[in-house]
Amino acid sequence: MAQVIADRRDVDFVLHEQLEVEKLSSHEKFAEFNKKTIDLIITEARNLAVKEMLPTLKEGDEQGCRFEKGEVKVPDSFHKVYELFTEGEWIAMCDDPKWGGQGMPETISLAVKNYFHGANFPFTLHTLLAHGAGRLVEIFGTDKQKDLFLKKMYSGQWGGTMLLTEPEAGSDVGALTTSAVKNDDGTYSITGNKIFISSGEHNFTDNIIHPVLARIEGAPAGTSGISLFLVPKIWVNDDGSLGESNDVVCTGIEEKMGIHGSPTCSMTLGSRGKCRGTLLGAENKGMRAMFVMMNEARLDVGMQALGCASASFMNALNYARERVQGRSLDAPGKDAPSVPIIQHPDVRRMLLKMKSVTEGMRSILYYTGFCEDMKHISSSEEEKAKYQGLIDVLIPIAKGYVSDRAFEVCSDGVQIYGGYGYTKEYPQEQLLRDCKITHIYEGTNGIQAMDLLGRKLGLNKGQAFKDLIGEMKNTVQASEKINGLEELAQDTQKLIAKLEQTALHMAKTARSDQMMTAFSHAYSFMDLTGDAVMAWMLLWRANAAARQIEKGAKKKDQAFYEGQLKSARFFIKSVLPLSFGKAEVILSGDNTVMEISEDSFGGK
Amino acid sequence: MAQVIADRRDVDFVLHEQLEVEKLSSHEKFAEFNKKTIDLIITEARNLAVKEMLPTLKEGDEQGCRFEKGEVKVPDSFHKVYELFTEGEWIAMCDDPKWGGQGMPETISLAVKNYFHGANFPFTLHTLLAHGAGRLVEIFGTDKQKDLFLKKMYSGQWGGTMLLTEPEAGSDVGALTTSAVKNDDGTYSITGNKIFISSGEHNFTDNIIHPVLARIEGAPAGTSGISLFLVPKIWVNDDGSLGESNDVVCTGIEEKMGIHGSPTCSMTLGSRGKCRGTLLGAENKGMRAMFVMMNEARLDVGMQALGCASASFMNALNYARERVQGRSLDAPGKDAPSVPIIQHPDVRRMLLKMKSVTEGMRSILYYTGFCEDMKHISSSEEEKAKYQGLIDVLIPIAKGYVSDRAFEVCSDGVQIYGGYGYTKEYPQEQLLRDCKITHIYEGTNGIQAMDLLGRKLGLNKGQAFKDLIGEMKNTVQASEKINGLEELAQDTQKLIAKLEQTALHMAKTARSDQMMTAFSHAYSFMDLTGDAVMAWMLLWRANAAARQIEKGAKKKDQAFYEGQLKSARFFIKSVLPLSFGKAEVILSGDNTVMEISEDSFGGK
Repeated sequence: MAQVIADRRDVDFVLHEQLEVEKLSSHEKFAEFNKKTIDLIITEARNLAVKEMLPTLKEGDEQGCRFEKGEVKVPDSFHKVYELFTEGEWIAMCDDPKWGGQGMPETISLAVKNYFHGANFPFTLHTLLAHGAGRLVEIFGTDKQKDLFLKKMYSGQWGGTMLLTEPEAGSDVGALTTSAVKNDDGTYSITGNKIFISSGEHNFTDNIIHPVLARIEGAPAGTSGISLFLVPKIWVNDDGSLGESNDVVCTGIEEKMGIHGSPTCSMTLGSRGKCRGTLLGAENKGMRAMFVMMNEARLDVGMQALGCASASFMNALNYARERVQGRSLDAPGKDAPSVPIIQHPDVRRMLLKMKSVTEGMRSILYYTGFCEDMKHISSSEEEKAKYQGLIDVLIPIAKGYVSDRAFEVCSDGVQIYGGYGYTKEYPQEQLLRDCKITHIYEGTNGIQAMDLLGRKLGLNKGQAFKDLIGEMKNTVQASEKINGLEELAQDTQKLIAKLEQTALHMAKTARSDQMMTAFSHAYSFMDLTGDAVMAWMLLWRANAAARQIEKGAKKKDQAFYEGQLKSARFFIKSVLPLSFGKAEVILSGDNTVMEISEDSFGGK
Repeated sequence: MAQVIADRRDVDFVLHEQLEVEKLSSHEKFAEFNKKTIDLIITEARNLAVKEMLPTLKEGDEQGCRFEKGEVKVPDSFHKVYELFTEGEWIAMCDDPKWGGQGMPETISLAVKNYFHGANFPFTLHTLLAHGAGRLVEIFGTDKQKDLFLKKMYSGQWGGTMLLTEPEAGSDVGALTTSAVKNDDGTYSITGNKIFISSGEHNFTDNIIHPVLARIEGAPAGTSGISLFLVPKIWVNDDGSLGESNDVVCTGIEEKMGIHGSPTCSMTLGSRGKCRGTLLGAENKGMRAMFVMMNEARLDVGMQALGCASASFMNALNYARERVQGRSLDAPGKDAPSVPIIQHPDVRRMLLKMKSVTEGMRSILYYTGFCEDMKHISSSEEEKAKYQGLIDVLIPIAKGYVSDRAFEVCSDGVQIYGGYGYTKEYPQEQLLRDCKITHIYEGTNGIQAMDLLGRKLGLNKGQAFKDLIGEMKNTVQASEKINGLEELAQDTQKLIAKLEQTALHMAKTARSDQMMTAFSHAYSFMDLTGDAVMAWMLLWRANAAARQIEKGAKKKDQAFYEGQLKSARFFIKSVLPLSFGKAEVILSGDNTVMEISEDSFGGK
C-alpha cells in the first residue's frame, strides 16, 4: 500500500542502518530500547498519526481556532486526538520516568515526531509547548515547583507555553519591558504584554502554565537583566489544588497564513494588577534558561519543516504514480498511450529532488538527536563536550537550512499536482502555507545564519566546527573504498575542503574591520555549510546502502538501496557544483550589500 | 512620500532611459505617445491602482468569491473598481481604436499593468480574460462576430474567458473530450465539462463570452482535431440584442490557496443539450489560435508575478526603514541605540536581492513588450521575424523564470516582517499565496522549461536564440568601455559564452538518443538562460545609469543611479558564480533522474 506522511522504510533505514540506534541500548539508560521495542513505538506512533491525526489536518486548517470572549476554542476534531495523544503518553517521550517521562532515546522520539508533525503539525505544536515549559520546570524549578507542576505538564493534563516576544522585542529579546516586582510572600507581581504566544490560551486543558520572561524592577537593561517566572493561568495552591484565576488573559489571536490549528495569542499580564508568578531559576538568569531550551525548540522547528516536506513528498509521489497525463516524450508516435506523470523527465527531476532533500533532512535531524543521546551515555567529559559541540553547530542547519529546503520541497509538491495543487481539495497547498512559519519562529532563518557565524563557528575555539568537519571526513574516507561511491566521495571531499577554507575566511573576517561584510555573507555561509552537511548525510546513507547491496540484500530491499545511491548521486552531482559557487561568492568578500546607501534602495 | 506597489522612478527609468520608449512615437502608429502622454498615462494608472485597487486587495482575499445557486458573486468592493476601470478604458490598451482600443505601445501597457497587478492582481485577472477573449475574436472572428462582440468585450461591458482545461486534459490539451456537432443553421451544439476557468461566471457584467476548445465529431484525435468556438453565456441575436440563456453553467468554484478575488469555475456545457456556439476561425485550427494567444497570456502571468514581487519589495523596504529592532552589529557597546532593521546586514542582503531581482524582472518583461512594439513598426520582414523570435525565446523566461524569482522575492518579503509577515495584518503573506499560482497556470513552469528546450532553442534553426545572445553581447560590448562596468561586463560575457556552449550541448542532445536526459535538465537550462538574461538586463540598466552619472546627474537622481550600479553588481557577483555551477551540471549530462527506477523512489 502507498505510504503517507513518511516512508517507513526510510525512517527505519536511518534508525537502524545509518545510525544503528539499537546500540544505544547497550547503555543502562536506554537498556529497554532494543530493536523490537523501537519498532513497536514507531508503529504505534504511525498508527496514531495516520488514523487519527492526519484526518484532522484539513478541518484544523478550515475551522481553525476561534477567539470568543477571552477564550480560545481549538478545532473541534482536535479534542479526541489530544485525548489519544495524552493517553499514549507521547508528550514527554525522552524525559525522566520519575516525572512521567518515557526515558526514550531522543533519536527515537524524532522518528515519532516525523509522523506526528507530518500528520498535523499545528496540532502537535500544542504538545511541544507543554513539554518545553515542563522542561524548564524540570531543569530550573525548585522541588516544590516540580512537585506542583511537572507531572501534570508532562502528562498533558495541563498545557504550557513560552511568553517571550513583545511588540517591540522580537528578534531583540533584550528590549523586553514586561516587569516583575517582588511581593512579601516571595511571589512576584508581573505586568506586561506579550505577543505571538503559541497555545497561550486554549480549551484542551483546565490549566496552562506560562513561563514568562520579565525584568525585575531595577535589573540591568538588555538581556542580562531578564528573569524567568512561572505564571499559571489558574493559581496552584501549595497542596496542589487549583486556586483563583490569575490575571493573565488572552486578548486576541492572530489571523495567519497557515497553522490555523495553533492559536497565536496576544497575552496581557497584570492588567488588573493581580498577575502573580514565582521565580523560575535565579534572578537575571532568564536568558540562560532560554538558551538551554533553544536547541530543543529549534530542532523541533526543523522537525516540523521535515514533517511538511516528508508528507508533501509522499503525496506527490503517490499522485505522480497514479495521475495519467501526456505521452512519453520518446514515444514513437502520436497514438502512443498517455502515461503516469512519474515517467516525465521534469516530474522525475522534481521527485528526485524532493526525495534526496527529504532523506537528507531526515538524517540531519535524527543525527542531531542521536548526538544528544550519545552525549548522555558518553563516559568522558571530552566526549560529552564533543557531542554538545556537534549539536550546537548543527542546530542552525537543522532549523534554518532545513526549513529553507523543506519549503522548496513543499512548493514542488504543489507543482506536481498542477492546478489541483493550488486548490484546497488536496493537502499540498496547506503544507506549503504551514511550512512557511518554520522560516520565522524560534529565531528567523537570518538569526540562524548569524548564530552559525557569530556564535557557533568560533565555539570552543572552533573545535566544534572542526569536529563536524572531522565527522564528515570519516564518512568520506569510509566511502572512498566502496565500489561505486569513489567519485561521490571525492566530490564531497572537495566541498568539505572548500568549506574549511571558507570557514577560516569567515572566522577571520568576522573578527576584523570587515565584520559587517562577513555578516552580509552569513546566510550564504549557512547555505554552504548546509549543502555540505546534506552531501555528507546522503553519502553516509549511500555507504550504508552499498554495504547492504554488497552483502546481498533481500530482493524487496534492492530497489530501496539503489534509491539511496541515486539520492546521493543526484544531490552531489546537481547541487554541489552550485555550492562551490556559493563559496566563491563568500571568498570574494564582495561588499555591495553594505556599500549601497539607504537612499539607493529607492522607493522614496 | 514612500512609494507603494512599484517604484515610479524605476518604472520611468526602464521606459525612458533603458528602452527609450519615446522613440516609438517617431512611427506613425504610435505618433501620439510622446513622453508627456506616456507619463500622464502612467500617473493615471498609478492613481487608480493606489487609491482604488490597492484598498480592495485584502477584502478581495477575505470575502473572496461566493458561489450561490449557479451564480458567482465577486468581492463587493470590486464592483466600484470595475466601474472605474472600464470608465478609464484600461482593458484594450494596445488594441485597434476601431474596436475601442487605445492603440498604445505594449511597453507602456506593461508599465500600467505593473501597477494594476501589484495593487490587486486577482481583480486585474478578470480584465485580462475579457481582453484575451476579445483578441481571439479580433484575430479569428468573422466580420459579423466582430460586430456583435468585440466593442462590448474591449469596453468591459461583457466579460470573457478561455475554456480550455478539462479534468483529464490539463498540460495535455490534446486529450480534451468536449464535443461539437454542427447544426443546420451553421451553429454548433457543444457538450462537455471544463475546469479551472478563471472568471467563468461572475456578476460584473450581463454577459460573458466563452471561447471554447472542443472537438468536432469525427475530427482527428490529439491537438490537430481541436476547434475553437464562441459560446456566449446569453445568446446574442443577429441585431445585437440579447436572446435566451445559453446552456453553459457554472457548477462550482474552487477553494484555493490564493487569488480568492478571482473565481476559478467548473463549467458544464450542454447538460440540457442546448449549448450553442459559433465556430471561431477554421475547423481543427483551435490549437493554432491558442498558440497565438499564448505569448500574451504567458507574458501577463510574468507581469502578475512581477506585480506581487514589486509590491512585496516596496512594502518590505518601507517596513525595514521604519521598524526599529536590535542594535547595530558594530555598535560600540550595549547601550547603543536600536536601529531601523535596514541597517542589519542580513536584512540589507534580502532587500538588495529583492531590489535587483525585481528590477531585472521589470526590464525583462517590459523589454519583451518592447520587442512586440518594435515588431509592429519594423519596416522589413527580416526585422519583424527577428523581434518575433526574440519574443518567442523570451516568453518561457518571462513566465517561468520570472515567476520562480518573484515567489522567492515574496517569501523574503514575508521574512523581513518577521512574525508579522506571517499574519494577515500585513499584505506580505497574501502576495506570497497569490504569487504561487503564477508557477502553475498558462503552462506550469516545467512546461515552460520544455518549451524553451523543445521549441524555442531550435526556432528558426536556432536563429532566435542566437539573436538573443547577440543582443546580450551588444550590451556587454557597450559596457566594457564604461568606467566602473568593465569587470561586470566581463563577468557577464563569460556567462554568455558558457550559455552558448550549454545551449549547443542541449540542442544536440535533445535530438539524440539522450533526449530524455536533455529534458531532465530542461529546468536547469531555463534557469541558466534566465540568469543570463537577468544579468544582461541589469548590466544594461547599469550602463544607462553610468552614462547619466558621467553626464552629471541631478543630485536627486544620483542615489537612484548608484542603486542601479549596485543592483547589477550584486546580481553579477552573488548569483552568476552559481549560474556557472548550473551550466556545469547540464554539461555533465548526469542521468540520475532518468536512471532511477520507479520502485527506487520508495513510498510503497
